[in-house]
Amino acid sequence: LERPEVTEPAIRLYPLRGIPEIVPGDDLAAHLLESAQRDEIALSNGALLVCQKVVSKAEGRVLRLADIEPGPEAMRIAAEDDKDPRQVEVVLRETARIVRRGHRVLISQTHHGFVCANAGVDLSNAHEEDGAVLLPVDPDASAARLRRALIDAGAGPLAVIVTDTFGRPWREGLVDVAIGSAGIEPISDLAGVPDLAGRELVVTATATADQLAAAAGLLMRKDSGIPAVWIEGVSVDGDGSIRETLRDPETDLFR
Amino acid sequence: LERPEVTEPAIRLYPLRGIPEIVPGDDLAAHLLESAQRDEIALSNGALLVCQKVVSKAEGRVLRLADIEPGPEAMRIAAEDDKDPRQVEVVLRETARIVRRGHRVLISQTHHGFVCANAGVDLSNAHEEDGAVLLPVDPDASAARLRRALIDAGAGPLAVIVTDTFGRPWREGLVDVAIGSAGIEPISDLAGVPDLAGRELVVTATATADQLAAAAGLLMRKDSGIPAVWIEGVSVDGDGSIRETLRDPETDLFR
Repeated sequence: LERPEVTEPAIRLYPLRGIPEIVPGDDLAAHLLESAQRDEIALSNGALLVCQKVVSKAEGRVLRLADIEPGPEAMRIAAEDDKDPRQVEVVLRETARIVRRGHRVLISQTHHGFVCANAGVDLSNAHEEDGAVLLPVDPDASAARLRRALIDAGAGPLAVIVTDTFGRPWREGLVDVAIGSAGIEPISDLAGVPDLAGRELVVTATATADQLAAAAGLLMRKDSGIPAVWIEGVSVDGDGSIRETLRDPETDLFR
Repeated sequence: LERPEVTEPAIRLYPLRGIPEIVPGDDLAAHLLESAQRDEIALSNGALLVCQKVVSKAEGRVLRLADIEPGPEAMRIAAEDDKDPRQVEVVLRETARIVRRGHRVLISQTHHGFVCANAGVDLSNAHEEDGAVLLPVDPDASAARLRRALIDAGAGPLAVIVTDTFGRPWREGLVDVAIGSAGIEPISDLAGVPDLAGRELVVTATATADQLAAAAGLLMRKDSGIPAVWIEGVSVDGDGSIRETLRDPETDLFR
């Protein structure tokens, strides 16, 4: 007796398990594929969400603080905020503009245009005791390379989204957001589509890539050892850059 | 032959379909239950995400603009921003503090403490041509009442989360966030838990309720007619208020 189709979940999330600690030069696509095959997850018709940490590590975006020589601005900020000046130096190198500083928190706009704490530099889960993991140089390109490697190995159609964990103004707690994408439109624009009462919806662009990232974040918690999540039940059309999600400074009320 | 357990999705999302247009006084819990039963979805061991619009409508938080008399401040802002003064008046009544105003956008802090555009007042999907839907007076209480009614009808254990669709600074596109919760801790605090390298994770509070809301948002798009989503595969311990997600103004760098 078959279960009625209506009880099938519309969206399904699968954690990719058993992926070892990634080190610079590792073939991340091969690790992702191997994990999926082991658990009989077909990477077809869905979105693969991969946390920035493993992407950055595979790409060698890792520094040792022992190798960092802090400059005067890093020394000054570190003294004011009681921080490791080498750590501050790394953050400043990744920072295009300091957006806010206070309460020992430094909110940066990165060279990519993301606004987040410490320019996305992460000291936890860096494996090495004094290691720092930086964001990928071009997370869209990272997503595209991973997607290409997976498709070449027989996977797909699929989207690949690189995620990171950001804080928000006004709200406590971190959420996962998309910092790179390939094979999907990160924003689903409903402008001009009528609502259920037949009126035109004016401003209804949904940040689909960010909603997918947040969903995946339910399984990618820092203590879980799950660096990637496969999501089925979402359409993976288009191929937009995550830069589409960066607000034009001209209309940004929170510069 | 049984499918191996490993291929079962860890998190599963089910849209609650066929819920009619809700009007003031409707028994929303009964509609949710009926929809779940029709699709053989057992509301047990999971989280029920319900969009604010149907909660507000059932609670009668609906106004007709024809009944609104705009005051001087609403008249002034409406003239400056080329808006309907009655619409601005409704927004101002729901506003505790104007956070930013510019580019015809008004960002408010609501009386609950949420920071969002137009104090959460919604003119789309309001059914009536000149209707406005306000946020619930106390969304935590709304979630708790719904949860109680569902448990009394035999559902549960479950969490209920009321969601709304908010914009963000710096990033385009809307995401769904939690504005009320019952039967779950909205923030999962990992402070003190060791990371995989054995170091203590210092700041790792995850906004679980917001991640669930964003996941549900993948199915609750404004043109979909899906006002509620059932999510399985998440633990539903605790019973925290969504006020825990509101950042203390003392440490808020974006007042």
